[in-house]
Amino acid sequence: MSETGIKQLQQRIRDFADARDWDQFHSPKNLSMALIAEAAELVEHFQWLTEEQSRDLPEKTRTGVKHEMADIFVYLLRLADKLDIDLLEVAEQKIQLNEEKYPADKVRGSARKYTDY
Amino acid sequence: MSETGIKQLQQRIRDFADARDWDQFHSPKNLSMALIAEAAELVEHFQWLTEEQSRDLPEKTRTGVKHEMADIFVYLLRLADKLDIDLLEVAEQKIQLNEEKYPADKVRGSARKYTDY
Amino acid sequence: MSETGIKQLQQRIRDFADARDWDQFHSPKNLSMALIAEAAELVEHFQWLTEEQSRDLPEKTRTGVKHEMADIFVYLLRLADKLDIDLLEVAEQKIQLNEEKYPADKVRGSARKYTDY
Amino acid sequence: MSETGIKQLQQRIRDFADARDWDQFHSPKNLSMALIAEAAELVEHFQWLTEEQSRDLPEKTRTGVKHEMADIFVYLLRLADKLDIDLLEVAEQKIQLNEEKYPADKVRGSARKYTDY
Repeated sequence: MSETGIKQLQQRIRDFADARDWDQFHSPKNLSMALIAEAAELVEHFQWLTEEQSRDLPEKTRTGVKHEMADIFVYLLRLADKLDIDLLEVAEQKIQLNEEKYPADKVRGSARKYTDY
Repeated sequence: MSETGIKQLQQRIRDFADARDWDQFHSPKNLSMALIAEAAELVEHFQWLTEEQSRDLPEKTRTGVKHEMADIFVYLLRLADKLDIDLLEVAEQKIQLNEEKYPADKVRGSARKYTDY
Repeated sequence: MSETGIKQLQQRIRDFADARDWDQFHSPKNLSMALIAEAAELVEHFQWLTEEQSRDLPEKTRTGVKHEMADIFVYLLRLADKLDIDLLEVAEQKIQLNEEKYPADKVRGSARKYTDY
Repeated sequence: MSETGIKQLQQRIRDFADARDWDQFHSPKNLSMALIAEAAELVEHFQWLTEEQSRDLPEKTRTGVKHEMADIFVYLLRLADKLDIDLLEVAEQKIQLNEEKYPADKVRGSARKYTDY
């Protein structure tokens, strides 16, 4: 599937919603709710596992996790499409911001972001 | 930024975490928590808006929404990388499943998925 | 059931977990994940409804909503018990803080908290 | 504060919202969003901690956790009030259901609910 990119997926989701007349339900407000509901299904897979177990999932859990991640991504793509936001671009900008905000030589080892609570 | 793809972003996030020795915090369990926390920040932007307002955001809110979506995407990319999951592939599979599960000629108009609760 | 209070419920949940040797899973970290997963099931009931529809739920949805709210409350009680936090007390303190933070004569009408985003 | 019960808190929250004319924002749909946003702030406190660390919080984190739990409880109380649901009653029913669903002598040790994923 290496050829299908983000734009193509967004077009396909748009066609999917249009064909079903579901666009009326896809306000950004509602999509944010659907997205977090899927994120919670992801969390559910991990909630009683140790961190170690979460790094080495049994096949059945792994399949479930994949599905939830796909659902999250689909709603994220749909929301980005509705709001005309370029996901790759904003993600790249955010990473750059983080690179500046947390200089490696300052936070390495101390991991301040994480432990300074 | 049209040239940067998902794989490049994942590499950059990996380098970012490695340079700070933060990989230790990025168990899938923890990443699922970080992801849902960002999804909730997205929800917060919309919680007191009407659906109509959510479709036409003031510039300041729109900027905030962009940042949260970037954060969600970054954690989703990171989790996919840690679990060796191809996001585009699983999203495409999920859309195909949905196309089969909700045939347009059956659900159009009635919008059963949404109103049959 | 008017006689059963919060302390009795917490005792019962504690006994329930002890009898099953499930205390080991109930770290505050894990309980926060379980709580948000239940909160998301609540959100799911409302995500495609209009605000108006959410105010007047069909019986079936109402029953589902009740169950999710019960689940949220049970995990909240359990977490409070594990951390030795008095829920009624902290809620009362929080309401008092909010009363001071948002003086009625200042925010009435303008509803600044909500629209000044 | 031992005298203040759930009903009194709900009355106080109602008065608080009425005095500010904020009732208009408190549709069950919106309240479910506000509740999950607070639940996520709880999760944020725990996301980079080990389970062990989450059992023994530094004072500053503990104070933050208390505030988030208060916020969750306030929105849960408000939603219960709007939907005329008795939280203590539904929680008690839910615990009873769980007691029947997971018989101690069957699930003890094996902890099936948790590990059979």
